[in-house]
Amino acid sequence: MKHAIRDGVLIAEEEASLPVTLRSMQYAYSVYEALKLKNGEFVHLDEHLYRLRESARGIRINLRYTDMEISSWLDLLKEADSLVNETFRILLVGNENILFITHDKTRSYPDSYYMEGVDCTLYEGERFLPNYKTSNLLLSYLALEDAEEKGAFEALLVNRHGYITEGTRSNFYALKGNRLYTAPDRDVLLGVTRIGVMEAARVMNVEVVYEPVYVKDVYDYDSLFISSTSMKAMPIRSINGVSVSRRMNTMVLRFSDYVGKWE
Amino acid sequence: MKHAIRDGVLIAEEEASLPVTLRSMQYAYSVYEALKLKNGEFVHLDEHLYRLRESARGIRINLRYTDMEISSWLDLLKEADSLVNETFRILLVGNENILFITHDKTRSYPDSYYMEGVDCTLYEGERFLPNYKTSNLLLSYLALEDAEEKGAFEALLVNRHGYITEGTRSNFYALKGNRLYTAPDRDVLLGVTRIGVMEAARVMNVEVVYEPVYVKDVYDYDSLFISSTSMKAMPIRSINGVSVSRRMNTMVLRFSDYVGKWE
Repeated sequence: MKHAIRDGVLIAEEEASLPVTLRSMQYAYSVYEALKLKNGEFVHLDEHLYRLRESARGIRINLRYTDMEISSWLDLLKEADSLVNETFRILLVGNENILFITHDKTRSYPDSYYMEGVDCTLYEGERFLPNYKTSNLLLSYLALEDAEEKGAFEALLVNRHGYITEGTRSNFYALKGNRLYTAPDRDVLLGVTRIGVMEAARVMNVEVVYEPVYVKDVYDYDSLFISSTSMKAMPIRSINGVSVSRRMNTMVLRFSDYVGKWE
Repeated sequence: MKHAIRDGVLIAEEEASLPVTLRSMQYAYSVYEALKLKNGEFVHLDEHLYRLRESARGIRINLRYTDMEISSWLDLLKEADSLVNETFRILLVGNENILFITHDKTRSYPDSYYMEGVDCTLYEGERFLPNYKTSNLLLSYLALEDAEEKGAFEALLVNRHGYITEGTRSNFYALKGNRLYTAPDRDVLLGVTRIGVMEAARVMNVEVVYEPVYVKDVYDYDSLFISSTSMKAMPIRSINGVSVSRRMNTMVLRFSDYVGKWE
């Protein structure tokens, strides 16, 4: 039997449910985190718990549990279901202040995604409160669905100023010469893997520039890539069906390697 | 025992729940309607079912039930719980395509709200896909919570251009001389009661002007008001703690009367 956690208590996964009459459910008033268990160890646990707390604070949910408590529950669930490599999801439902932990298989991607790059589409829209991981995700849902219908892997969000902020489940970067461009912090999710990408840039002596990449300039860069917990750093080969430069694909793969080892 | 409906089947209300692992739940991928039962009759049932279908279409959920089916289920629930005056909520969960109907007491407001008007606050933000009633409501939640903390009744949303679009659960209007101003359709929820307000304007020979009301001009109007299924037409007496004109309060109450009878 697959398990889940509700407020520290081990339950059957099918009991991890919420009434449709709950106000927080009706208003998407909740925050979440997704984190990996790799060879029996939680990857960047502190960073994920810190961000959970920040997301909660950002929409004024009082997270009443300590990091110690939450990590002990992650361990409890790991042991109960004998897990070694898996992705865990923490959901904190606001107002009623209910914390769930569930788990699922970790996604992995074929090598070709890294060697050849992935196809992306563009979608106009701005995430509400982009720094926080809230359940108010309808834009991301529709954008990703649109991408998948077009046979693409990810949708990149374009804001009112015409620049790419982030993907629906990834951060976005562009390389040009020895510079790495990424949108300013205020516009995007502060991805845990993004911290690793920045760290890699430092080690590789690549200068990080917090400047937006405009859609109109997207063909002027040497390489584009996205990052996330499951993707690491993944090169982009086309945007809206038009090929982009992969001149520095090797460097993107070095970022990916670094982020993989940094785990 | 209080009941609910799930896909046409009468269930106990506490069984009206959804797993937290459901993708639609995690992405706020659902639409809803709230409608009144008054003296045993559903008020503007056709308009609500039409809007439910429009909301579903708007975010590409295929509503697989007919209006006939849904209205027979509303009747089933009404009979099962012997209801006469009540508010029903229809929730259509996308992707999995699950339809719930639940019910709750209809809200009513003291006469003083109509005679003296209510206090409103301003909140900057734009609803994503404002024409559709989706569950992607975090902005509305936070805006209303902010209003209530300040002792106000409703928050009015202000868009990037500096004009008031709508309230978190109401439409917004301003009267000046013989003209009624309200935001263009593309910016707001197409409220069922708003249709009634427009109809009232026609009957009262008031000219409807689909032009936005800018925050900076809010003191230049004769009266401001909001409308919704539960509020009818309700005058505003202050915005962000500063009194606004109620010179035409009597006309606002005529709108309220008309909308009440139009039910």
